[in-house]
Amino acid sequence: MKQHIADRMRGISSFYVMELLQRAKELERQGRDIVHMEIGEPDFATPPLALEAGNRFLSKGEVKYTAAAGLPELRAAVSDFYRAQYEVDLDPRRVFITPGASGAFLLAFAASLNPGERVLMSDPCYPCNDNFVRLFDARTHFVPVGAETDYQLNAELIRRHWQPQCKGALIASPSNPTGTMIGNTDLQAAIAEVRALDGCFYSDEIYHGLVYGDPAASALQFSDEVFVINSFSKFFGMTGWRVGWLVVPDEFVDAVEKLAQNIFIATSTHSQYAALASFNPENMAELLRRRDELAGRRDFLYDKLLSLGFKIACKPQGAFYIYADCSEFCDDSFEFAKRLLETEGVAVTPGKDFGAHLANRHIRFAYTASVDRMAAALTRLERFICR
Amino acid sequence: MKQHIADRMRGISSFYVMELLQRAKELERQGRDIVHMEIGEPDFATPPLALEAGNRFLSKGEVKYTAAAGLPELRAAVSDFYRAQYEVDLDPRRVFITPGASGAFLLAFAASLNPGERVLMSDPCYPCNDNFVRLFDARTHFVPVGAETDYQLNAELIRRHWQPQCKGALIASPSNPTGTMIGNTDLQAAIAEVRALDGCFYSDEIYHGLVYGDPAASALQFSDEVFVINSFSKFFGMTGWRVGWLVVPDEFVDAVEKLAQNIFIATSTHSQYAALASFNPENMAELLRRRDELAGRRDFLYDKLLSLGFKIACKPQGAFYIYADCSEFCDDSFEFAKRLLETEGVAVTPGKDFGAHLANRHIRFAYTASVDRMAAALTRLERFICR
Repeated sequence: MKQHIADRMRGISSFYVMELLQRAKELERQGRDIVHMEIGEPDFATPPLALEAGNRFLSKGEVKYTAAAGLPELRAAVSDFYRAQYEVDLDPRRVFITPGASGAFLLAFAASLNPGERVLMSDPCYPCNDNFVRLFDARTHFVPVGAETDYQLNAELIRRHWQPQCKGALIASPSNPTGTMIGNTDLQAAIAEVRALDGCFYSDEIYHGLVYGDPAASALQFSDEVFVINSFSKFFGMTGWRVGWLVVPDEFVDAVEKLAQNIFIATSTHSQYAALASFNPENMAELLRRRDELAGRRDFLYDKLLSLGFKIACKPQGAFYIYADCSEFCDDSFEFAKRLLETEGVAVTPGKDFGAHLANRHIRFAYTASVDRMAAALTRLERFICR
Repeated sequence: MKQHIADRMRGISSFYVMELLQRAKELERQGRDIVHMEIGEPDFATPPLALEAGNRFLSKGEVKYTAAAGLPELRAAVSDFYRAQYEVDLDPRRVFITPGASGAFLLAFAASLNPGERVLMSDPCYPCNDNFVRLFDARTHFVPVGAETDYQLNAELIRRHWQPQCKGALIASPSNPTGTMIGNTDLQAAIAEVRALDGCFYSDEIYHGLVYGDPAASALQFSDEVFVINSFSKFFGMTGWRVGWLVVPDEFVDAVEKLAQNIFIATSTHSQYAALASFNPENMAELLRRRDELAGRRDFLYDKLLSLGFKIACKPQGAFYIYADCSEFCDDSFEFAKRLLETEGVAVTPGKDFGAHLANRHIRFAYTASVDRMAAALTRLERFICR
């Protein structure tokens, strides 16, 4: 007898890159050397102070549940971080510690989206965001964006695309896959526009800190009535620990507290204690050194890709991705990625993982590998496109 | 301007015990001694071998994402565990490692429930289960149960309560709050009934292993077409690590894999490595010693509560709870719990956290504290009810 899979699953897709990843692993098992430029996780170990804090906590052996909303000292530390970093006063009650940014998106959308409602997002954007919306039987309204807006939504696009079913808009800056950012004035105007429309503004700030020019502004600098999603995974270098946070508008605090109690119990306790050490000045100094290393990688990869004939509409200002137009070399970037992996052992992510708008012309390169490894990949890439 | 909280939040409630917990903490800050018999977490530290494995993994400092479905070696170890423990052959592809049993419920219900569909559950039962159903805009149809079925659903109750909108039924054995179990024949018949109705059978087995008589049967012994939720939190003693697992029917593997990629990225890596040590025979021996300690606590508490005049309709066979009828002493068990905390510093959980059926007559006692601490609590309880 057949059991019926929920209808929402028809709209939730695997990432195309998974197919490439699986093939890359097969090739590695066969002894091939693969350069991984598809992975959204830098090759850095956990920062020493965070690791020490995790170990110190574990040495006691008492790994019990924390409060559902997170360790009070970690919520307070996040609040202090907003004061230090953004000059924002933030009541720790509005901060929820979550299992990665994934948990933050779960809470934010579960607490705010009804079935059938719409959320505006840019195309291209990170594919999980749309799938989180679909989880609650709401829908994403994708707005095609390009170089003219640094691949970001803005107030005018929001106004033009807003429909009666719209519940909110999401802006991710720096963006995955483009690494581009929204300007402060544009961010402020976008928030004002969404709030004037009585909508929810979701600010995905998970790549904050990994910014190579002027620092990014937080949505909280412009409004208290926003959802901010952030994480210890990217700038703080703690991917596998799975700790993130969500800041919610005051009126959502009770609802999100109830949700957290029910759907998480709590975030991993030792991970929270390790995360608490992140804000130590010595740790922050190490993180800035890592950011500078990534800035160097970006410059290296950007220049090389341009010299090979890739077009990059906007020089990325943050995160660790370059979204490159490969239409000079192919009609279908997924085929391009598959052949590049097979023939040269270089793994990249096809544009169609990030939307539909000109996706077949684009490839995402992650500079999460060292310059040496990237140099090897680029030699192979040059051979591949000159073939 | 008002932002609109999602409609589903109206149906999701906080636990009443949270109010008591908060008051208990206030009293502790004032210097009062509180005996915690409300907490679903025993006073044991992480088992030494799991802790060592976690530490050993962390010593390398490379805490990267795992595959979304979990570490392949942990999925294989869970599969092996089913062979050793239940004589069940289980393809590791059907095993998903999750952030606690919470993550397992999220995946199971997201993949199977459409808005408006119904899931049958017993009343009383664990409150999060209903709230997970509501998260996906489905509804729980509660079936009042009592001593005549050991507080469990059975095939006949399922048949009688099944409606056209019904999508499935959930059985938790051993049960929270009652500690009672479903017999093997009844479990098999209940699964057959649900499958004959073309429904999904969700078997909550998170208290397996904490069983004080004959071991519990897994739903997987009777069918491959079931969802099984389990966790490293209870028998394996790893609450704060947040690792659980979900077994799904073969036809759900692809859907659940996609979901896991999107909504978790992965479960905490170091927690998965620690969990992997759980199945070590030396660790299992330690866990059985802890189970025997809990069995002793159950006997102690059970006898004492009866001698004080509480009625316990079924002697609990597993978990670490006793669901006691306190109608001899009060009309409203929540008021009883509040006064017991205020006057005697003993914290317990009111029945209304577990449903509506005769809830005001019942209190849940957790035997997660030592016999000495419980003895102190029972002296105070005796004074309280004799006042």
